[in-house]
Amino acid sequence: MSYVKYSKMDSASALSAFSIKGSFMSRIAVIIADMFEDVEYTEPAKAFEEAGHEVVTVGLKAGETVRGKKKQTPVKVEKSVNDVSADDFDALLIPGGYSPDKLRGYAKPVQFVKDFVESKKPVFSICHGPQLMITADVLRGRSATGWKSIAQDLKNAGANYQDKEVVEDGNLVFSRGPGDMPAFIRASLAKLG
Amino acid sequence: MSYVKYSKMDSASALSAFSIKGSFMSRIAVIIADMFEDVEYTEPAKAFEEAGHEVVTVGLKAGETVRGKKKQTPVKVEKSVNDVSADDFDALLIPGGYSPDKLRGYAKPVQFVKDFVESKKPVFSICHGPQLMITADVLRGRSATGWKSIAQDLKNAGANYQDKEVVEDGNLVFSRGPGDMPAFIRASLAKLG
Repeated sequence: MSYVKYSKMDSASALSAFSIKGSFMSRIAVIIADMFEDVEYTEPAKAFEEAGHEVVTVGLKAGETVRGKKKQTPVKVEKSVNDVSADDFDALLIPGGYSPDKLRGYAKPVQFVKDFVESKKPVFSICHGPQLMITADVLRGRSATGWKSIAQDLKNAGANYQDKEVVEDGNLVFSRGPGDMPAFIRASLAKLG
Repeated sequence: MSYVKYSKMDSASALSAFSIKGSFMSRIAVIIADMFEDVEYTEPAKAFEEAGHEVVTVGLKAGETVRGKKKQTPVKVEKSVNDVSADDFDALLIPGGYSPDKLRGYAKPVQFVKDFVESKKPVFSICHGPQLMITADVLRGRSATGWKSIAQDLKNAGANYQDKEVVEDGNLVFSRGPGDMPAFIRASLAKLG
């Protein structure tokens, strides 16, 4: 790739924190488990990397391969959620499918998401992604959207649910599902600046 | 089978409404879609039929075959939810897995579940089954349990969530998942009388 990769974890100089396009390069965590909605990981991750950002997959167990629910896309989990913190990253992506349902049954991924939302760093969630934020109880009073099946859960969690392709509230970007992908990616990239 | 099958929809005589064990025979709807948790359909259905009750699968489309998420158990949908009402049955079973997530995105299955709960007929739900009741908004003030990932959703829906193998509240029977199966079946059969 033609751009300089930057990570707060490595010893890259401040200069390398700028992409060839002149914008700040972010290190983006993706919290992921089996049965993620394939394109909700692959498409944003591709767009983020093409824009010069770094994408790091975070899951229950470092080194394991998780698979998407439709296309069986294999994704290697780079970091265990037990070994990282929100401080190590600049932003968070939560793909949907049934990955969030699997993750929200554990305390660590829920705390990781909670820390991100409270840190005011950008959090991009799509489809069933907001389920993790519901369990983290961080949506009270926030505008949000998500897959239609979780609409009532979002309302009950205190969110102002809106049936729109993109809903933004402060550091949070939400979309409903794969059909909203171009708008979701556009809004997410804009938050990374 | 050695028992007499009874259905309120057919012209069976009142006498045939009693099983060989002397109890009333119920016609039990199972609301089901793809990716149900296999044993949460197969085991209660087997137990209900063995006790002399009738089990009727109800889904989005009559005649389609849906499959379980783990064992790919094929189940033929006998009735479309568009063609039946809670009046046609004596009880409802809601298996878990990701079937409830698929069903709760549609108005008819949600209304079907709502009608059952409000009719005071027995409703047996396990694992992710209560998600349909959350969308139907019928859990306010009721005691409930379910799979750990939906615990916060149940609380937010106004339920008194309890981490127990069986929770009963009036006509409702809940269990957390496959590990609670014997207790779930026992409590459900008891409600059928």
